[in-house]
Amino acid sequence: MPDLSLAKLAEITGATLHGEADCCVSSVAALDQATAGQLSFLTSARFRQHLPETLASVVILQTGDLDHCPCSALVTDNPYLAYAKAATALYAEARRDGSIHPSAVVDKTAEIAASVCIDANCTIGARVKIAEGAIIGANCVIAEDVVIGAGTRLVASVTLGKNIQLGARCLIYPSAVIGSDGFGMANDAGRWVKVPQLGRVIVGDDVEIGACTAVDRGAIQDTIIANGVKLDNQIHISHNVELGEHTAIAAGTGIAGSTKVGAYCTMAGAVGVAGHIELADHVHISGLTAVTRSIKEPGIYTSTVPAMPHAKWRKNFARLKQLDEMARRLKVLEKELAATKKEET
Amino acid sequence: MPDLSLAKLAEITGATLHGEADCCVSSVAALDQATAGQLSFLTSARFRQHLPETLASVVILQTGDLDHCPCSALVTDNPYLAYAKAATALYAEARRDGSIHPSAVVDKTAEIAASVCIDANCTIGARVKIAEGAIIGANCVIAEDVVIGAGTRLVASVTLGKNIQLGARCLIYPSAVIGSDGFGMANDAGRWVKVPQLGRVIVGDDVEIGACTAVDRGAIQDTIIANGVKLDNQIHISHNVELGEHTAIAAGTGIAGSTKVGAYCTMAGAVGVAGHIELADHVHISGLTAVTRSIKEPGIYTSTVPAMPHAKWRKNFARLKQLDEMARRLKVLEKELAATKKEET
Amino acid sequence: MPDLSLAKLAEITGATLHGEADCCVSSVAALDQATAGQLSFLTSARFRQHLPETLASVVILQTGDLDHCPCSALVTDNPYLAYAKAATALYAEARRDGSIHPSAVVDKTAEIAASVCIDANCTIGARVKIAEGAIIGANCVIAEDVVIGAGTRLVASVTLGKNIQLGARCLIYPSAVIGSDGFGMANDAGRWVKVPQLGRVIVGDDVEIGACTAVDRGAIQDTIIANGVKLDNQIHISHNVELGEHTAIAAGTGIAGSTKVGAYCTMAGAVGVAGHIELADHVHISGLTAVTRSIKEPGIYTSTVPAMPHAKWRKNFARLKQLDEMARRLKVLEKELAATKKEET
Repeated sequence: MPDLSLAKLAEITGATLHGEADCCVSSVAALDQATAGQLSFLTSARFRQHLPETLASVVILQTGDLDHCPCSALVTDNPYLAYAKAATALYAEARRDGSIHPSAVVDKTAEIAASVCIDANCTIGARVKIAEGAIIGANCVIAEDVVIGAGTRLVASVTLGKNIQLGARCLIYPSAVIGSDGFGMANDAGRWVKVPQLGRVIVGDDVEIGACTAVDRGAIQDTIIANGVKLDNQIHISHNVELGEHTAIAAGTGIAGSTKVGAYCTMAGAVGVAGHIELADHVHISGLTAVTRSIKEPGIYTSTVPAMPHAKWRKNFARLKQLDEMARRLKVLEKELAATKKEET
Repeated sequence: MPDLSLAKLAEITGATLHGEADCCVSSVAALDQATAGQLSFLTSARFRQHLPETLASVVILQTGDLDHCPCSALVTDNPYLAYAKAATALYAEARRDGSIHPSAVVDKTAEIAASVCIDANCTIGARVKIAEGAIIGANCVIAEDVVIGAGTRLVASVTLGKNIQLGARCLIYPSAVIGSDGFGMANDAGRWVKVPQLGRVIVGDDVEIGACTAVDRGAIQDTIIANGVKLDNQIHISHNVELGEHTAIAAGTGIAGSTKVGAYCTMAGAVGVAGHIELADHVHISGLTAVTRSIKEPGIYTSTVPAMPHAKWRKNFARLKQLDEMARRLKVLEKELAATKKEET
Repeated sequence: MPDLSLAKLAEITGATLHGEADCCVSSVAALDQATAGQLSFLTSARFRQHLPETLASVVILQTGDLDHCPCSALVTDNPYLAYAKAATALYAEARRDGSIHPSAVVDKTAEIAASVCIDANCTIGARVKIAEGAIIGANCVIAEDVVIGAGTRLVASVTLGKNIQLGARCLIYPSAVIGSDGFGMANDAGRWVKVPQLGRVIVGDDVEIGACTAVDRGAIQDTIIANGVKLDNQIHISHNVELGEHTAIAAGTGIAGSTKVGAYCTMAGAVGVAGHIELADHVHISGLTAVTRSIKEPGIYTSTVPAMPHAKWRKNFARLKQLDEMARRLKVLEKELAATKKEET
């Protein structure tokens, strides 16, 4: 990890430096844990109390907090973004020279650029193409005809089905599976007959795919993950789904087949989205919400059912079965009362 | 991929050919994307608009659509099933000769049939038996005493626990785990003590198990997946669960311990099924539904809570806590109004 | 598997033996399946009917059931716990001698204790430390600087990210991932910029982590799994989460970032817990429940929405959107009726 001067960090982050340009930091820490030589940041009111006593050498913060900062400061409108850039620079991993571990099994027809690293126990299929600077971590499996862009990293234990395309600078976590068959079956008098899944998965640039996430190949056409999409762990992307640019989806979410999600959308954890619908750009779905119809307007959509003490739940949720009846009885009462009042007058 | 004549495809699919028996196709495409030499199909009203202009050489469709078909047609009651069969024939993979990759580690007591393929970096345990035509893709782990039926394929990166049985023609996707221990623990004054999980997983013929799906072994008796069951990605099947024949379950569903699901059932995505209950045959569960009790009658069951705009949700869902109170107040009003009216008369 | 005398089993389980101390059993079975030479147990009223006819040689049960036991009995207040101990003893696996399979790739700087087993096709990184008696099953990947405690077992196909610590006697199932990056991103005018995830995962002693479960490393500080925690399959633990001692979580649950869960908690399957909240000790969450706020009092909390026949659901759930309106109309009615009655008097 390199030591970086505050002047350099101001340049990297685009923040305005208040303090000692030559002072150097080598690592980061939370405000209340930082010591001399460390960088910290203030991104949430929750942590503001720790600012005056911090021992950090420099804090990234907004201008409104500058007065309470006991050390050098990097002032910016978006401290979290500046922190992301500073930490990325401080924790830059040493560039590895290209190498293929002798235990990796690489098909002789694969085209591997010179600077690619392929770690131990990987299996790389026929006609695979891997561009410069890619890192294929240990025990990955890459089936035939896969194309991997420059600088993409498969952390370890990733499995890519045949004919999948990954763009540049993607980051794929362990146990993720890209390009397994979609769940497509025809019914033959009760028995299921497999429908061959012939499409690909096309993943854009700068895409992140989390641990144990599965992205299925298209049935005929392709499943498409656009540039800048971020997928957390244990997400299910069905066949023919299309995810728009810079959409981010939290863990445990599932999106059923042929659904199109717009750009700049977010989904919190454990969302379920029905198949064959469309979500506009800038749609935000709350956690544990079921999206059963297309959403045409940007905005926040929710169906989370918040927990309550169990005894309270027993009483209230039993009434869910009576809701329609209650609504009808309410209407009857309204009519009757109106009639009563009319009689009186 | 073989070229097939329409006469041959009529034979394979059981459909009635209207058009040129000698015409050949070599691949499939959607109606609006197909070109000469391709087969297409019409299975949904959604795509009917594309039929008159399709450039496909042949379309699989129902008799009612025949008049609008500009090319040869294969007419059948179930076009999706016929398409499944046609596509399977057109995209048949070349049969591989049996082979064990030198990097695979196969215990010397394993019994591997001559036509089995075992790909790179696999680990096969003691006394494992693998029948003719099975394909064990790269980086799979098969623990001791596993039995695998003829023609079964582990795509890659599959892990099978000891003593598991898989039937014939199964298809298991990457990162799937069959035969990990069930979640069985006794409580000892607050601390959990592991209960050994001694049962097996018995998987029938023609079963499909999706990526990142986990099927736990039984506690004492076995977990049973019957013939023809299809499991999508990231499904959790707990210890001692029994799934009936030809039941299909979509991604993200979890079934708790000792529950018995009937035959010909379907579950849409992200369903949760409680433990120690029974579902009859032909039960269909909608997506994101909680099944908390046994279901004795065939039919569709649902508790999906559909998303609404967040502001609307805030207002309405806060009332869930008041539902029982509302029901009581409604009853009081009904009584009071009835009393008022009685007085009047 | 050893034969054990009932006297020995009484000693192991702490139960009181009624019957033949010298009688030996070698395996376990359910009450209605057991034969001579087998041990069985009665832990649930559901199975009481099978006790009088059981052919088991010995049954673990509570004192109230002793009169109906046709064979020897081990009497205890907690038969399930006693069964866990007895079965553990009966099915003890033979201790393996330390060994590193020649196909495993172990960095030369790793410190592997003499009694450790490392199975085929594993990849072990630089400076990894593995303590006595640990078993690293086939095809595991352990990144650099990981520390693994004595007696811990990675079943197979487990991936550990760099710098992770596992305590003693942990049990980790296939396709589990510990130490992938947390889902931390700053937003730069719509685009997501990765925030380096610099913390570790610290796992205590006697922790069980299920198949396809993913535990993310902390952003700056660590993700912490305390002693005795049990995690089922396909669970998602986000960055900086802290799980208290002896908490047990069933499959499919997700816990969002920085949330602290107390000790002795339980969560049933498919629970979702929001980020940045705290759950007290002894909190129990029902299946398919959304925890959106901190819970300060021990107890059971629930928001499960139970399934109903689909037609009933259509009628009732459409009313959810009207709930606030219904509540307001109810209030109006109450006022009007009160006014009517006042007029009358």
